[in-house]
Amino acid sequence: MLFMPKEVKFFDLFDAQAALVLESASLFKKLVCANDITRDNVSKMHALEHEADEACHNIINTLNESFITPFDREDILDLTNQMDNIIDGIYLITNRFYLFKIKEPSQESKHLAELMEKAAIEVSQAVISLRSKKNLKKTIKHCVEINRLENLADDIRDEAISRILNDEKINPLMAIKQKELFEESEAVTDMCEHVANTISSILVKNN
Amino acid sequence: MLFMPKEVKFFDLFDAQAALVLESASLFKKLVCANDITRDNVSKMHALEHEADEACHNIINTLNESFITPFDREDILDLTNQMDNIIDGIYLITNRFYLFKIKEPSQESKHLAELMEKAAIEVSQAVISLRSKKNLKKTIKHCVEINRLENLADDIRDEAISRILNDEKINPLMAIKQKELFEESEAVTDMCEHVANTISSILVKNN
Amino acid sequence: MLFMPKEVKFFDLFDAQAALVLESASLFKKLVCANDITRDNVSKMHALEHEADEACHNIINTLNESFITPFDREDILDLTNQMDNIIDGIYLITNRFYLFKIKEPSQESKHLAELMEKAAIEVSQAVISLRSKKNLKKTIKHCVEINRLENLADDIRDEAISRILNDEKINPLMAIKQKELFEESEAVTDMCEHVANTISSILVKNN
Repeated sequence: MLFMPKEVKFFDLFDAQAALVLESASLFKKLVCANDITRDNVSKMHALEHEADEACHNIINTLNESFITPFDREDILDLTNQMDNIIDGIYLITNRFYLFKIKEPSQESKHLAELMEKAAIEVSQAVISLRSKKNLKKTIKHCVEINRLENLADDIRDEAISRILNDEKINPLMAIKQKELFEESEAVTDMCEHVANTISSILVKNN
Repeated sequence: MLFMPKEVKFFDLFDAQAALVLESASLFKKLVCANDITRDNVSKMHALEHEADEACHNIINTLNESFITPFDREDILDLTNQMDNIIDGIYLITNRFYLFKIKEPSQESKHLAELMEKAAIEVSQAVISLRSKKNLKKTIKHCVEINRLENLADDIRDEAISRILNDEKINPLMAIKQKELFEESEAVTDMCEHVANTISSILVKNN
Repeated sequence: MLFMPKEVKFFDLFDAQAALVLESASLFKKLVCANDITRDNVSKMHALEHEADEACHNIINTLNESFITPFDREDILDLTNQMDNIIDGIYLITNRFYLFKIKEPSQESKHLAELMEKAAIEVSQAVISLRSKKNLKKTIKHCVEINRLENLADDIRDEAISRILNDEKINPLMAIKQKELFEESEAVTDMCEHVANTISSILVKNN
């Protein structure tokens, strides 16, 4: 699979956006696991989210100016929008932890943050390996792993929500906050799965 | 870009459906801001939602009978289904306000209703401007504005939910109701964004 | 419409997956209506969900090995993923009932379980009737019926949530659990509607 210069550019742009996905997931895990979600760190995450918006717009602008693309135009649009959703989702949860005044995230939130980072690693590797058809099996393996991590996140969220809602001593408002944070963390792994599905779709059409 | 009569018909039908999107968003804002969500007004909204269903079915029937379409068949289907989702969402929230017996929507709900109407205006203008390729830049501008309004709605929802959940004196059941209404209002701006994404995809493929 | 052997294989695989959709919805309804969501029955549902995962992977593998497909490759991918989502959703709710220690599902949950089974019947019949173009009208009828059932489920969920949240004597944690179960049951009918939308899209493109 030999690409034209214009097509190579798309892969470069995707790699840059995937690096931001990974950077925000890693920062999130670090902050959650260190009980360090401060106003300053929310701002740091917001700056990252803003940078990611520009990476996404950059890809869409390039798409609008290109006649030749390495795969279907709508798949390029889906892929960049879905990576953007991951970073938006991570920012949203960071901000929620701060607004909800949660000083110490629960063990399950920390566990979910670890899974989010792992899924982000797989997303970035799947995107990077899209560049060459020789990577087909490797790319599929990353997508399968994202699915496995998403299933794991489902289980952790379900157990965590149940623990909270079966705790008769908990303050109901705190229960609602914790439930929300579990759900939104799991939703980030869903967004990673959407990227995996789009990549699977690209592979299925271009194989 | 010169269209065949059959193709012109699709734009006419889209314009009619977009007008219903705007009408329901405007009615919703009026009712919420006037503290006027009564059983009669819920019925009025329901009639509008029913009319919109027929506009959507009309487009799908025309699609099934047409060999020539102004853009990809699946994009026509997406666009009409997504506009329908907006109106369904607006009806759902109206009904929830009534069922939840909320006599006076909160300031944040009123603010979100205003954003929903603004997003609906942009949706209807983006759809109308799809008719001519000369409008390309204008159409993109409407889509960008929808994204901006959706981001704004995100922020208002997050602040509003946090205010509610940090209020130790609130009745927990009332907290759940208010949270639900904030989330569903924001979800309508997400649905507007889905329309913007489909329109972007149409532009990217037909540019 | 005469299909090649390879294409016939896809329909056989879809029929097998659709049978699992129906089987899990029927088991769910049976368990909910008999107040019989035990650890053993959750395991039974989990085994079904696992079997369905393999049916889905089987279709994706066949797709990756096939040059000829009865309709667009991405539609095959969407259809199998969306059927898988239905079964995942049904397992999730079953598990939640168990984790939430709900011994007697509410009347509304039973009603929603019946609608879920009805929607699953329509899904399986729509998928089976995809095999022949002679079934076009029948297939559309099944899709329309899925939409009707989804709307009905919306109404039941909204009434049920309102009943719970207007009940001043309810334990707030129990209110959150019940609301969650109503929402997730309705979400399964949304997933059935996604299948109906994909089938509509296949019909619109291949008519």
